[in-house]
Amino acid sequence: MRAYLDHNATTPLRDEARDAMIAAMDVVGNPSSVHGEGRKAKSVIETARADIASAFGADGADVIFTSSATEAAALALRDRRLHGADIEHDAVGAWVQSDLSVDHNGQVTVVDASASTLQAANSETGVVQTLPEGLAVSDMTQAFGKLPVAFNWSGATMALVSAHKLGGPKGIGALVVKRGTDVSAQLLGGGQEMGRRAGTENVIGAAGFAAAAKAAANDLANGVWERVAHLRDLLEDTLEDGAKDSVIVGKGAKRLPNTTCIATPGWKGETQVMQMDLAGFAISAGSACSSGKVRASRVLTAMGYDEATAASAIRISLGPETTEQEVLGFADKWLAQMKKHHARANKATA
Amino acid sequence: MRAYLDHNATTPLRDEARDAMIAAMDVVGNPSSVHGEGRKAKSVIETARADIASAFGADGADVIFTSSATEAAALALRDRRLHGADIEHDAVGAWVQSDLSVDHNGQVTVVDASASTLQAANSETGVVQTLPEGLAVSDMTQAFGKLPVAFNWSGATMALVSAHKLGGPKGIGALVVKRGTDVSAQLLGGGQEMGRRAGTENVIGAAGFAAAAKAAANDLANGVWERVAHLRDLLEDTLEDGAKDSVIVGKGAKRLPNTTCIATPGWKGETQVMQMDLAGFAISAGSACSSGKVRASRVLTAMGYDEATAASAIRISLGPETTEQEVLGFADKWLAQMKKHHARANKATA
Repeated sequence: MRAYLDHNATTPLRDEARDAMIAAMDVVGNPSSVHGEGRKAKSVIETARADIASAFGADGADVIFTSSATEAAALALRDRRLHGADIEHDAVGAWVQSDLSVDHNGQVTVVDASASTLQAANSETGVVQTLPEGLAVSDMTQAFGKLPVAFNWSGATMALVSAHKLGGPKGIGALVVKRGTDVSAQLLGGGQEMGRRAGTENVIGAAGFAAAAKAAANDLANGVWERVAHLRDLLEDTLEDGAKDSVIVGKGAKRLPNTTCIATPGWKGETQVMQMDLAGFAISAGSACSSGKVRASRVLTAMGYDEATAASAIRISLGPETTEQEVLGFADKWLAQMKKHHARANKATA
Repeated sequence: MRAYLDHNATTPLRDEARDAMIAAMDVVGNPSSVHGEGRKAKSVIETARADIASAFGADGADVIFTSSATEAAALALRDRRLHGADIEHDAVGAWVQSDLSVDHNGQVTVVDASASTLQAANSETGVVQTLPEGLAVSDMTQAFGKLPVAFNWSGATMALVSAHKLGGPKGIGALVVKRGTDVSAQLLGGGQEMGRRAGTENVIGAAGFAAAAKAAANDLANGVWERVAHLRDLLEDTLEDGAKDSVIVGKGAKRLPNTTCIATPGWKGETQVMQMDLAGFAISAGSACSSGKVRASRVLTAMGYDEATAASAIRISLGPETTEQEVLGFADKWLAQMKKHHARANKATA
């Protein structure tokens, strides 16, 4: 029996999204067609757009569907050279000047909000930022669905979101923008998305995204993530009790309710991921893989951790359905492996 | 009982695609994750990629998944200023120098193949091109699934394709490129698609695309489109018998087996689309809509038709399931409306 504890990478499709997608499979038309079949397809898209706006506290804002938060980032950031911090996701980092300072708790200082981008929450550490009023762009991919974020109250002019982080399908995201904001299209040749993003719409995906966003908003209102936060605290207490040399990254900051990033200097994150995979637990390394080369997490080095610590980080991210048994089962296996690691390391240096 | 005769705009989801998509909904991981769940998701993507390559006669070529043929066009054409003709789809036309000549049958003359783009078949008229060896880019969106095209034998270096034109879902397409061809990524921040297109993959959509492509290849092998071509001929014979002032565009050229473009000077295409929609038939106007303003079809004016003729064109595009009853039912209603139109027009000028 495996336990999936990598919900920040992607989270399983919610039943509500599955049902909405299967229903949308019967929609025949192209949303750009003027006949009855086309109008029905258009109404699926527009209903989805309104539902997502509502779940995201963005009524009155424009929701521009994209194929991912990565595409939304390119649409929001390309050719703008905004200021950002080294803890941003690579999809944001690729377009910004990485010159904003980050403290040891992962908090970023923004100097000029209207010329800057800042994530709402970090995917590796779960650290949550306080967004300044007038912020140009915010990556809200990890926050949407796990925290009570409302775009209209966030102070941001644009936000990036993704369906598959909250139980929708992979392959659809959105750029949400305050009405009246300039967005220069990068995909051309059709008038879709108010001329801001050409290409026939992902009708089935939009239906799934909307249903997942609604279900995620209900979960939030029903306190599901408070239960998850208790499990996360139980996990961290158990790990800290047994692993005196390990450090929980960002613990002093406000964090997502589901994310633990724990570093154990000397024990490579990638090794831990593979050992835990064999033991039946899906987690991820804090470090990013690039051309097969294991690097230290850029996020952790930006927070002032040394390379050895940064390269030893793993992320455990829980989901709405995660159980106490899964969390304690993970802690048990991980602590056993950690003891073996220390025994081997001590033997090697003896 | 409505008849959907607009399969070039989009065609209903095939049962095989539906089943494959529903199966892929149970795949939990992110294809970039190294654990078991991630590897399973990766294998769905890679199996889909291989199946599409095989159905498209592109074994050994690279299939880069995109969110649409429109995105594939941007990836293939941006900043290259290739030569093209005015009959290309807007998603291609947006990036090219429109300076290649088109004859009255819709045939394009390519001067420098390696610096040019040319569609395999036209969406409005169905006219098929002979592609020159060494062509830089070909839009094969309408041909793939309806004609026995094989990328490896096409002479093109890159091809654009789309799932929803052959019974897959909307929201996924691909750029197919000869191995070793340079493609500069436009979406950044992840190593997906061999570093050529960042963003978490549309796993469910890729599974649907592949299943549809396989089913479409089977249909082709089983002669389904020969049956459709007979229906198309029956439709055209019936329309020509009753409409002496109308002209079937591109009839002298090799065409897709399912497409009829008929122009009736003086009777606006948009009006015909609305009248036929009310009568229970989904078709489209040859003309493109831009900001609600009805324009003459750029494709037809490029072929030398005058504005009045170009603005009067409609497209009827049949699908694998279209019946003789639907085709004759359409001809009957359309000819009746045409007579009413001529009666009104004669009265107005009397």
